[in-house]
Amino acid sequence: MVDLKKTALHYQNYLKLDKILHAQFPMSKELGDESHDEMLFIIIHQAYELWFKQIIHELKSVKDTIKDEKIDEKEIIKVVKRTDRIKEILNLLVKQIDVLETMTSIDFLDFRDYLSPASGFQSHQFRKIEVMLGLKINQRHSFGNCPYHDQFSGEEKKEILTLEDQQSIFDLVEKWLNRNPFVNYEDFDFVEHYTSAIENMMSKEMNSIKSSDILTDNEKNIRIKMLEGSKEYYKEIVSKASFEEKNSNAFSKNALISALLIFQYKDQPILHMPYRFLKNLLDIDHIISNWRFRHAQMVDKMLGKKIGTGGSDGADYLKNTVYQNRIFNDISKISTLLLSRSFMPELPDKIKSKLGFSN
Amino acid sequence: MVDLKKTALHYQNYLKLDKILHAQFPMSKELGDESHDEMLFIIIHQAYELWFKQIIHELKSVKDTIKDEKIDEKEIIKVVKRTDRIKEILNLLVKQIDVLETMTSIDFLDFRDYLSPASGFQSHQFRKIEVMLGLKINQRHSFGNCPYHDQFSGEEKKEILTLEDQQSIFDLVEKWLNRNPFVNYEDFDFVEHYTSAIENMMSKEMNSIKSSDILTDNEKNIRIKMLEGSKEYYKEIVSKASFEEKNSNAFSKNALISALLIFQYKDQPILHMPYRFLKNLLDIDHIISNWRFRHAQMVDKMLGKKIGTGGSDGADYLKNTVYQNRIFNDISKISTLLLSRSFMPELPDKIKSKLGFSN
Amino acid sequence: MVDLKKTALHYQNYLKLDKILHAQFPMSKELGDESHDEMLFIIIHQAYELWFKQIIHELKSVKDTIKDEKIDEKEIIKVVKRTDRIKEILNLLVKQIDVLETMTSIDFLDFRDYLSPASGFQSHQFRKIEVMLGLKINQRHSFGNCPYHDQFSGEEKKEILTLEDQQSIFDLVEKWLNRNPFVNYEDFDFVEHYTSAIENMMSKEMNSIKSSDILTDNEKNIRIKMLEGSKEYYKEIVSKASFEEKNSNAFSKNALISALLIFQYKDQPILHMPYRFLKNLLDIDHIISNWRFRHAQMVDKMLGKKIGTGGSDGADYLKNTVYQNRIFNDISKISTLLLSRSFMPELPDKIKSKLGFSN
Amino acid sequence: MVDLKKTALHYQNYLKLDKILHAQFPMSKELGDESHDEMLFIIIHQAYELWFKQIIHELKSVKDTIKDEKIDEKEIIKVVKRTDRIKEILNLLVKQIDVLETMTSIDFLDFRDYLSPASGFQSHQFRKIEVMLGLKINQRHSFGNCPYHDQFSGEEKKEILTLEDQQSIFDLVEKWLNRNPFVNYEDFDFVEHYTSAIENMMSKEMNSIKSSDILTDNEKNIRIKMLEGSKEYYKEIVSKASFEEKNSNAFSKNALISALLIFQYKDQPILHMPYRFLKNLLDIDHIISNWRFRHAQMVDKMLGKKIGTGGSDGADYLKNTVYQNRIFNDISKISTLLLSRSFMPELPDKIKSKLGFSN
Repeated sequence: MVDLKKTALHYQNYLKLDKILHAQFPMSKELGDESHDEMLFIIIHQAYELWFKQIIHELKSVKDTIKDEKIDEKEIIKVVKRTDRIKEILNLLVKQIDVLETMTSIDFLDFRDYLSPASGFQSHQFRKIEVMLGLKINQRHSFGNCPYHDQFSGEEKKEILTLEDQQSIFDLVEKWLNRNPFVNYEDFDFVEHYTSAIENMMSKEMNSIKSSDILTDNEKNIRIKMLEGSKEYYKEIVSKASFEEKNSNAFSKNALISALLIFQYKDQPILHMPYRFLKNLLDIDHIISNWRFRHAQMVDKMLGKKIGTGGSDGADYLKNTVYQNRIFNDISKISTLLLSRSFMPELPDKIKSKLGFSN
Repeated sequence: MVDLKKTALHYQNYLKLDKILHAQFPMSKELGDESHDEMLFIIIHQAYELWFKQIIHELKSVKDTIKDEKIDEKEIIKVVKRTDRIKEILNLLVKQIDVLETMTSIDFLDFRDYLSPASGFQSHQFRKIEVMLGLKINQRHSFGNCPYHDQFSGEEKKEILTLEDQQSIFDLVEKWLNRNPFVNYEDFDFVEHYTSAIENMMSKEMNSIKSSDILTDNEKNIRIKMLEGSKEYYKEIVSKASFEEKNSNAFSKNALISALLIFQYKDQPILHMPYRFLKNLLDIDHIISNWRFRHAQMVDKMLGKKIGTGGSDGADYLKNTVYQNRIFNDISKISTLLLSRSFMPELPDKIKSKLGFSN
Repeated sequence: MVDLKKTALHYQNYLKLDKILHAQFPMSKELGDESHDEMLFIIIHQAYELWFKQIIHELKSVKDTIKDEKIDEKEIIKVVKRTDRIKEILNLLVKQIDVLETMTSIDFLDFRDYLSPASGFQSHQFRKIEVMLGLKINQRHSFGNCPYHDQFSGEEKKEILTLEDQQSIFDLVEKWLNRNPFVNYEDFDFVEHYTSAIENMMSKEMNSIKSSDILTDNEKNIRIKMLEGSKEYYKEIVSKASFEEKNSNAFSKNALISALLIFQYKDQPILHMPYRFLKNLLDIDHIISNWRFRHAQMVDKMLGKKIGTGGSDGADYLKNTVYQNRIFNDISKISTLLLSRSFMPELPDKIKSKLGFSN
Repeated sequence: MVDLKKTALHYQNYLKLDKILHAQFPMSKELGDESHDEMLFIIIHQAYELWFKQIIHELKSVKDTIKDEKIDEKEIIKVVKRTDRIKEILNLLVKQIDVLETMTSIDFLDFRDYLSPASGFQSHQFRKIEVMLGLKINQRHSFGNCPYHDQFSGEEKKEILTLEDQQSIFDLVEKWLNRNPFVNYEDFDFVEHYTSAIENMMSKEMNSIKSSDILTDNEKNIRIKMLEGSKEYYKEIVSKASFEEKNSNAFSKNALISALLIFQYKDQPILHMPYRFLKNLLDIDHIISNWRFRHAQMVDKMLGKKIGTGGSDGADYLKNTVYQNRIFNDISKISTLLLSRSFMPELPDKIKSKLGFSN
């Protein structure tokens, strides 16, 4: 409770609607040739930017929460909540494309020429979101030879470069994973424990396939290929070497093993919210890709092979960002290694008691 | 093509992001006790208001288009397009509730006291939308004894009262329906034509029911009740009297008959876009009701039986607006009268040729 | 790993597509007057029934999991997962209405007469879902004087009556809440603790309002009304008497207090998944209401004031079920009592340590 | 009205629920090791197949309607309606993925081994949809060296091969476009008319750019590139040669010009529904791509780099089908050629009168 404020608050003042609702200036109108649909074009982009601001607000809170050496379990509940919300917002942003698709090509052509060279590449906030999550400049799909931040100057450029130098959520999550105490707990070594389970599973399965009377040779080969693929990938993970040449958005071996432990034993109370957090990061990555994909489709419908107002090759440029600008690819790779429950090794009692509640 | 503008347009200037993104001032922060979730509360309401602005932009265009005595067929294509868009926006606004629901009761309580007496009742734009569509002051569910426009003063109050005096979309649609040339075309009288078809359908069906060997008495009664309900309602429509006591958001008899003709023969080329327009108005009404319903549910979850910041009884008030504040109820009533294709009377050739294309 | 099966499994056999895809027999076709849209009508209802089967599968698992005296924390993770899925399915079922709305009134009239007296009231699985969740026969909105199970006979009737006699999820949740050890833990009495916090909050707030120089009398009254409403409701909860006359779908006082504790301290690790479970039950209730609401709207559009094929008053009957057939109303009432964080009393250390993890 | 049927119809018989609800046989249960989530896996695929049946029902109606030499305008209203519905169904199928995503990797692993080598490749109905729309065997992304129909045998194989030989919707639409009378109407030659409009637009715009004092050289280049891209593409369209080497899912030059006329003059009454039909086909293509994309994402999450049960490389195979298996690419290319309203040439009066209604 605080002192009651001096004057009765009114909805319109609280929301600064004088600013928000007086910020739409269609170029076509300014230039004396008003096009009905330019209002939609402005308002939808403003709505996107408002939501980007909200996403940044949530991402900041996530960064602040996980930057400490020691993160309380309650804090993990908090970051799950933050990322749950980001997912809902991103889903809304995908849905917004349906509204933009009510504008046809011809409606867009009526004012498109007035906009050049302005373009969505110039959204400072969208770049901040990418950088905060962990997209590195050298890994992003670029367009022309210009680095993306050439679109900005002054304070804005400085801000984005500073952000690039700071630890991203990707970096902080990797560190947090590295600290997972259960990977090596007293004399328990998770990698050793897991390796023997994987080998056990594989040899049993291999025998079963080879000795089968009913599988055709072709079917046997399919199943053997399935098994060997997983085996190879697992070896890659547990052998340090292969990770030394890792590219910048891959987790370290330790972090990956830690994430694997969390995914495999996610139903243990203490691991459940960490699992939900990692899962949410992967979902966020996927929904952003989905937004990029749907955006590229919309541009395809609207412009065909015309180039973008910012000079890009439009739909084609956008398509390329769909798979390339992903950040948490590694989390989806964990599924390659998961064991079904029947092969999941029992944890030692001393670990299990640590994964539950005190009562 | 116009003269190229003086300076290269930048995304941030075009969208006035200096205004849009510097318009969030959480009261909890101002008062020294920042609550993380107040930002969401502000931004989602600002996003609502942006979209309300867009809806008003579309509604104005609809009003302008249908206010003339003579409306070209191309203009009907235009209003279908406008209303298609309004539906997409409204569906987005329903979806936005999912985002707000990521805020829990306790998160809201952290800053709720700071907001009173501001409330959503004070949204000027939402009231404009209701009035433009045709919601009359005496038909809306009111709260306390205050008329809704007591929330406004000065220019805003004047604007809303002026709008109340103007013709709404409901009014203009009614007039447009009244002008439908096919209700009475030369010596063709649609009511007469339709009445005999309805009577024919009913008597055949009644005979079939009564003479059935296999229906139980109970089943016969159900079917007879079905028939008689429709019959009574049809009589109500075609007898002028019952409509003299009509309330303010009911169409005149003529308008209703005209809408019935459009619905019944919607697959005739010239009637198809008028049908889509009427259908869209009904859909808009339904989606707004759906938004009210979901909004009431969200408040129910957030506040339980607590009263609203504006002093209303919260969820209960909102529930009452769901059914009461509808505008195009009459369009859904038309379905009561429709005939299945087998009973739909053939139109005279001279009419049919008028409903098609010239070639 | 099991023995490999005798023959290679094919998609079409696995899914029994010979049954699934040969189960559509439009009456209009049987009767020699095929109506294109009847196929949609059949298929959408079959899809609903498939999903109902899945919901029942999940509900059974929930019932089995929470029926024991002692429920492990891992089990709560499981029921959260089950109810998360039920929510997604229900949201899909709401979305299915969009597909049905592509059928117009006239398209439906073409085959509607053939269906009578069959109707959605006769969905055995939907009734099972209602009963399993906890809807009691005396609390449901009925139609005519017939109890809903008069639609069934033989094994089906027996099954539904047996289910009515068993403990529902509502009943089992109430018992589980009653066992919450933290409501009375050693010498800690949550009600006492909470009552003094509520009184403290209220008297501080009351003073602040009354002594304010800036609030108008009207604004003071609004705030005082807000406060007193919550106070009264709280008294109602803590006084046993008022609950003795409770109706059948209200939680006992103890259960409600227990749920209040969980909602208020949901960010304590051990309470978080129980909170999510209760929240999911409330959400399920809300999504079912939302489905009922949208279903009533669709019928309103399709039939207007025509009566239903089962003989009900169609849209009006459906509207009445929206609010009346709710089950977990009590969970939404908890929000009425929640305290903002600034008034939330600190828990004693011995309790807090019990709410966290063992490490 | 037909004779009333012999016995009262009951919901459960009408929907053949004895078949539909007794068609779920989880392999894990058969093999004595029941996995809770296999039921979901079965039911969601059955729901997919039900909806595929409905889509095929609609596609058949579209094919039947447009196969005639002379198609009445009312028939175009009908195919718009059919394709509107297909879009809603496809959107539902995208949404169904959200339900499947409630199943985690580990839940899936519990029964995945039992399913091999069954796989979604074996969906006969999905292949039929692709073939009916117009996907040709040589243009589809294949997996291994096997043609997709090796998955089928007997009647099923015969059916799919027959379908391949028949005219697809793509073929029929191309023919329908070829018959568009307005491309050459008496002495009006649309190509000539349009070519001069395009040249006019381009030279005016080129001058304006080159003579600008305010554009930087870089900005000039961007705009010039925009212009020249469209110019080249237009030339490609109007020069017959380039189309002789066209691949199988490209429209003939004539058909493309006809579609261009429809898109450019879509607000003329007689062209509006043809426009909506073409637009729906493009949307259907896009939604199927979107479904493929989301499906690939889900598999990525579920399996990581594991190979599919059918032996494919799982997520990677699926990704490749997203862009490659498109059918109506050409319709989106039309946007490349559209002129803004200010450059859109007026049609001769004799044409305009033919595009409107007779009254």
